[in-house]
Amino acid sequence: MIVTPQTFRFTDPLPLRSGASLPAYELVVETYGTLNAERSNAVLICHALNASHHVAGRHADEQGRPIPRSEGWWDNMIGPGKPVDTDRFFVIGVNNLGSCFGSTGPTHTNPATGAPWGADFPVVTVEDWVDAQARLLDAMGIETLAAVMGGSLGGMQTLSWTLQYPARVRHAVVVASAPNLTAENIAFNEVARRAIVTDPDFHGGHYLREGTLPRRGLRIARMIGHITYLSDDVMNEKFGRSLRSSNDADPTAAAELAYRYTTQDVEFQIESYLRYQGDKFSEYFDANTYLLITRALDYFDPAREHGGSLSAALAKARAKFLLVSFTTDWRFSPKRSREIVKALLENRRDVSYAEIDAPHGHDAFLLDDPRYLNAVRAYFDQTIAGGMA
Amino acid sequence: MIVTPQTFRFTDPLPLRSGASLPAYELVVETYGTLNAERSNAVLICHALNASHHVAGRHADEQGRPIPRSEGWWDNMIGPGKPVDTDRFFVIGVNNLGSCFGSTGPTHTNPATGAPWGADFPVVTVEDWVDAQARLLDAMGIETLAAVMGGSLGGMQTLSWTLQYPARVRHAVVVASAPNLTAENIAFNEVARRAIVTDPDFHGGHYLREGTLPRRGLRIARMIGHITYLSDDVMNEKFGRSLRSSNDADPTAAAELAYRYTTQDVEFQIESYLRYQGDKFSEYFDANTYLLITRALDYFDPAREHGGSLSAALAKARAKFLLVSFTTDWRFSPKRSREIVKALLENRRDVSYAEIDAPHGHDAFLLDDPRYLNAVRAYFDQTIAGGMA
Repeated sequence: MIVTPQTFRFTDPLPLRSGASLPAYELVVETYGTLNAERSNAVLICHALNASHHVAGRHADEQGRPIPRSEGWWDNMIGPGKPVDTDRFFVIGVNNLGSCFGSTGPTHTNPATGAPWGADFPVVTVEDWVDAQARLLDAMGIETLAAVMGGSLGGMQTLSWTLQYPARVRHAVVVASAPNLTAENIAFNEVARRAIVTDPDFHGGHYLREGTLPRRGLRIARMIGHITYLSDDVMNEKFGRSLRSSNDADPTAAAELAYRYTTQDVEFQIESYLRYQGDKFSEYFDANTYLLITRALDYFDPAREHGGSLSAALAKARAKFLLVSFTTDWRFSPKRSREIVKALLENRRDVSYAEIDAPHGHDAFLLDDPRYLNAVRAYFDQTIAGGMA
Repeated sequence: MIVTPQTFRFTDPLPLRSGASLPAYELVVETYGTLNAERSNAVLICHALNASHHVAGRHADEQGRPIPRSEGWWDNMIGPGKPVDTDRFFVIGVNNLGSCFGSTGPTHTNPATGAPWGADFPVVTVEDWVDAQARLLDAMGIETLAAVMGGSLGGMQTLSWTLQYPARVRHAVVVASAPNLTAENIAFNEVARRAIVTDPDFHGGHYLREGTLPRRGLRIARMIGHITYLSDDVMNEKFGRSLRSSNDADPTAAAELAYRYTTQDVEFQIESYLRYQGDKFSEYFDANTYLLITRALDYFDPAREHGGSLSAALAKARAKFLLVSFTTDWRFSPKRSREIVKALLENRRDVSYAEIDAPHGHDAFLLDDPRYLNAVRAYFDQTIAGGMA
């Protein structure tokens, strides 16, 4: 499946929860499959921290050939014959405002100054993203979604859709998500942000103006992220206490058996892995985007306006729900998904819940666990398609 | 109890596991209580990352008055009438080599250059510390210890004592510890180290020479540490999603109720707490010491020389053991203590084990849980004192 992103331009300012508003802006979008005549088969996919509109399929090079390893981030989930079957559903991937992957964000030009927005890009929330996504659907002529679906932060957007636009969402598929972040989650986000903000190359968020990039901070942020995406078990299984490879150029070389006794060089394989992930991330991710997206995570808390009652907050929802969680996910643990299930049941909503016994931690929502993929497939085939016009 | 540190100077070089050796060195020590005539009531306390020889009692100012809030780090555990009763036991606190609290370490002068050791201070291991502690006991004329005791990294030293000097230890009290670090633990240590080492003020570890201190890196390291010392539950209870105080000068002022929508300023109380802890730590802790001590944690792994068999490694131990763990400690979880218990039982050693249902995470080993303190008290009163000459 070869796909091409499209850009939608919006000229009405978008009012934001912070009180600010975003002037004319663009959203980058990909679609897969065909919108049916009744316009009833659209599925919106919401993305998490390090992802984009490029959900499925591959991009093509200038000659139209598929670029190797350019699969969308949920390509195992979405496509012809896949759990979210694009032979049947019209799937929409949209890049959120504030991102660094195409939609209007801090690396773009601030029309008021002619310079990059940088740290002056307004703070955006999950609710703001959902508002922007609703305008996108207006522009596409889609009134009602067969489903909204997302994992992690994408699951928060999905949940928020059912509260902000209850009449426009028939089904909500919320994977590895939570009704808000715990103190520990906020703490990890804050350490990552401090690493970025205190990098001397950050320059208060105006590093582009200075011709620098706060790569040191981004590396640390990504390393912290990776630790929290994996479970303790899977880390032990993948890396354990194995030492770095005896030949750095050949990662398959047998691990050396002796300690080198060094405080600054790599000694254990887990260290190589984290350094590599940090280096890679710091080459392509924008630091201000990192701050914005982690803050959107911190701020999301629909119960907040209801005296902390999630049940009261979810009373507005009209959709049917599938929730999925993973047993070893300690960042968005099953307990948090169960809080959502409980609050929905208290409102007599229609809820299916799958708690998948997977070893991979939070990352499991992107991986190929057959029980997980089958649960989503069954829900789309039977519940969503079954109820479609 | 007013206490005064003493300094012991050693002129024989100490051979280290790395192959290097440390020339003449000093150890700073405190003692509490009185060594009996049989020299049979000595208890050695081993410290963890951010601690020292100052285990109990208070220091005095120049007029001999007790300095407020100068209690030792285990003052709730050790003292007259306390679980480790200094009316009965002679307790020794010793600062480890490589520390920044008095014993020879990277901030001291390298005799070979006349400049501070900095990053040239040799890598020290748990085994090296135990060797240095054994020499200290020789100097104090103590052949056999009634007990060695420590929490976390201190528990690793305790365990190592029973393997390196099995005939010199009658009892080992190992609290909130592990037979080695998991990949996840090493990963957290590595991120903290990378934050320090990539701080431009680190200068390859020779910051003293340059007149700088890598405070940014130390702050990040400490913030990461604090997250892992606390449990998710206790963080939620202490901070939850509460916003920063409405009056920064008055921490008791009611928390503000509105989001400020900021990516760089403090929004949640957990953020203030972590920033405060990071700032405080960066004012007094040495960065090279941080690297050395976290590496000692990473390297400790007695099973390593026995093909990974902890049971084979612990065959050398002759001591009787008390192990204590805390249910919400996810850094040194009960599972890890149970591995030690199991390996000791396989060697038919005498083991008591207390798994304390405490909410505080790894920090619990420093706190006032009565069940914990009573378990230690009972072990010292009945088992250790009962068996004393």
